[in-house]
Amino acid sequence: MTLKLNDAYVRPFLDEAQLAVIGSEVRSAQQTLLAKNGKGNDFLGWITLPDDYDKDEFARIQAAAEKIKKNCDVFIVIGIGGSYLGARAVIEFLRSPMYNNLKKDTPDIYFSGCNISAQSLNELLSICEGRDVCINVISKSGTTTEPAVAFRLFRNLLEKKYGKDGARERIFVTTDKEKGTLKQFSDEAGYETFVVPDDVGGRFSVLTAVGLLPIAVSGVDIEQLMEGASDAAALYTAETDPEKNACLKYALLRNSLYRQGKTTEILVNYEPYAAMFNEWWKQLYGESEGKDGKGLFPASVIFSTDLHSLGQFVQDGTRNLFETVVSVKNASSQLAVPYDEANVDGLNFLAGTDLNTINQTAMKGTVLAHIDGGAPNIMIEIEEKNAYCLGHLIYFFEFACGVSGYVLGVNPFDQPGVEAYKKNMFALLGKPGYEDRKKELEARLQ
Amino acid sequence: MTLKLNDAYVRPFLDEAQLAVIGSEVRSAQQTLLAKNGKGNDFLGWITLPDDYDKDEFARIQAAAEKIKKNCDVFIVIGIGGSYLGARAVIEFLRSPMYNNLKKDTPDIYFSGCNISAQSLNELLSICEGRDVCINVISKSGTTTEPAVAFRLFRNLLEKKYGKDGARERIFVTTDKEKGTLKQFSDEAGYETFVVPDDVGGRFSVLTAVGLLPIAVSGVDIEQLMEGASDAAALYTAETDPEKNACLKYALLRNSLYRQGKTTEILVNYEPYAAMFNEWWKQLYGESEGKDGKGLFPASVIFSTDLHSLGQFVQDGTRNLFETVVSVKNASSQLAVPYDEANVDGLNFLAGTDLNTINQTAMKGTVLAHIDGGAPNIMIEIEEKNAYCLGHLIYFFEFACGVSGYVLGVNPFDQPGVEAYKKNMFALLGKPGYEDRKKELEARLQ
Repeated sequence: MTLKLNDAYVRPFLDEAQLAVIGSEVRSAQQTLLAKNGKGNDFLGWITLPDDYDKDEFARIQAAAEKIKKNCDVFIVIGIGGSYLGARAVIEFLRSPMYNNLKKDTPDIYFSGCNISAQSLNELLSICEGRDVCINVISKSGTTTEPAVAFRLFRNLLEKKYGKDGARERIFVTTDKEKGTLKQFSDEAGYETFVVPDDVGGRFSVLTAVGLLPIAVSGVDIEQLMEGASDAAALYTAETDPEKNACLKYALLRNSLYRQGKTTEILVNYEPYAAMFNEWWKQLYGESEGKDGKGLFPASVIFSTDLHSLGQFVQDGTRNLFETVVSVKNASSQLAVPYDEANVDGLNFLAGTDLNTINQTAMKGTVLAHIDGGAPNIMIEIEEKNAYCLGHLIYFFEFACGVSGYVLGVNPFDQPGVEAYKKNMFALLGKPGYEDRKKELEARLQ
Repeated sequence: MTLKLNDAYVRPFLDEAQLAVIGSEVRSAQQTLLAKNGKGNDFLGWITLPDDYDKDEFARIQAAAEKIKKNCDVFIVIGIGGSYLGARAVIEFLRSPMYNNLKKDTPDIYFSGCNISAQSLNELLSICEGRDVCINVISKSGTTTEPAVAFRLFRNLLEKKYGKDGARERIFVTTDKEKGTLKQFSDEAGYETFVVPDDVGGRFSVLTAVGLLPIAVSGVDIEQLMEGASDAAALYTAETDPEKNACLKYALLRNSLYRQGKTTEILVNYEPYAAMFNEWWKQLYGESEGKDGKGLFPASVIFSTDLHSLGQFVQDGTRNLFETVVSVKNASSQLAVPYDEANVDGLNFLAGTDLNTINQTAMKGTVLAHIDGGAPNIMIEIEEKNAYCLGHLIYFFEFACGVSGYVLGVNPFDQPGVEAYKKNMFALLGKPGYEDRKKELEARLQ
């Protein structure tokens, strides 16, 4: 089985009658999603995406990735939010969080345009010195401040270094299919473009060109990624019984915990390579559910690292949290504890034991400790650390998120709150058309 | 002023009568800390540390750092929890989060022994191939599993590469002053050792040898760091009025918010270089306060990056959170938005504007948006991005943490919950002496 959900460490915290009630809400939510007659139904393209994606564009993505791999040492991905988190999560999970520090036959990959930091941009510009560079700018509108500024800088760099004609071969644009100034500009400039679909929101876009091009450049098999997602889609859309459908089960459990006052969900992983996957998950759930004064606050940890940081709180702090633990059954890297004659640390009883065994045991010991401390644990396990299983896991979390949001009673596919800071920022920066708001805001600053 | 706290965006959410009550609790807590007659008073060495540290050892740290800088390309710091977070936080804050990817005249620095990941260790071993390596193992007892395993591996690597005599010059040990097997072993092997003081807990240890040696290797001026902390100590221990003492004020505000049901505190920063500082803060507060079923859950974000991820939730999700925003007044890196003839993104109104101005404006716009959404904001600003101001900020958060913990009614200086998972892990791994617990736990695994 590609993915298993174990509810043994959460069930004792839940009430069977309540589970039955929420279980029927979960079934309805699944049907609403599939019938496409619920809130935000303009943004449900991700549901069938793993099967009905544009095959021609997919081949173009693979070809562009090969070209990029050949032509550069440094590949800069420019995007913010859903335009970088998915790709970064997959690359770190399947390749490495130390990807840029390891010897490899694929380019270094840096993510830019996801902050307004002069230092970050200056450092990245210095990293590019003397090296061949390609860029992929990802922005539906082309007007989001952070990626737009980075695109200005790196386009300048490329045109200076290679001339306009040379730069044209090194700039790849993922944007709207036809609308928007970036699409128009790219066509005029002759950049190759890929599509941010109209009916897939940013946080659900990792399996579109948004995620797939950078992922392919890193050397990950994107066909396997799509195949895993496709098999997951078949599984989770068909079965209507939460007891037989892990995706519905996850939605059921977390909503049940939420209604008992567990308002924070911590995504737990035992490998550093999952840190950015946790960040992807935080956007997916936080942005989908955190509205109308509702939602589970999404937090994340890497254990055992953070057992020596947030572990105390999880064990014994405010009891408004639960954990969702994601693990991989079969390890992809082995290393045995060496025997040490001096046995300074008293660990010779572990000599010869593979670290994965110790890590899995740490997980088991921690789960028992945390449930004893009153923190319920939902356990999710995938079979292997590969593109197929990760594609499955991505779809699992996406579909469960849609279901969960409907059970919560929100529109899981909009993000109206993200506009608030942008409007204020533009007004305070003196953008034409915001003059009244500027005055009003400036008067409130203290 | 080195540090300013602005309470204008939190005060409207608070009740003046309640503030007065908690204000007097804060004053008492400060006195209890200074009189050293409260809970956990065996662990208050950090209070006077910035002045009464061991000057001879400090000079030895500086000399060792110079030796390490000369002798290696890769410096491996082995430690978990408080034994790595402080150093990593300071190095990333003052040097760069991309430190290992930048050209520089100091060694690359990698943190190891803070997980049980075969992949991480294998990758780091491969990074060391063909390069000169020094290590600093940091462990009070020498028996904590994660750093102990890493120490076995890297000690082997060094002894294989340089022989026992060569390795001796490249291994630096920070451990107990006299007790513990690691101290004894190091003395026998002839390693240079530094001290983890008895009266300073791990999460308060960044200004001891634990943090200072790795920080010095990165090229940061540790004298300035101590001086900043020393001036902060003078300031925050002397003034007893929370209205005149930013440190007491912070403790007052966060406890007041907590009693109003704001159970999650999000530390906010607008520069990626602060991400690990946020992690250091999360351990400091989470491990100090998360006990007896109490405490503020510590979370963190980097804006504007995460405005496109958790921003929606902060703006409009479950209203049990507040933000503490840390910013630096004077930027250390500049970069202007370039003019673009095509003006594809419509940002020419910002051409020539320094990114720091835009970033500061994003912060102001966000604060107003978030308080409008019902999320109170505590604003903390330091003057410069340098060692002096960061030393000040570190002491600020440490002293406020001690005060806060007493106001909360817990012992802020222990971490009993961290033992729970360790005992379970050892039992399940078959450590001699844990046989009964092993049976009992295995019966509960499902």
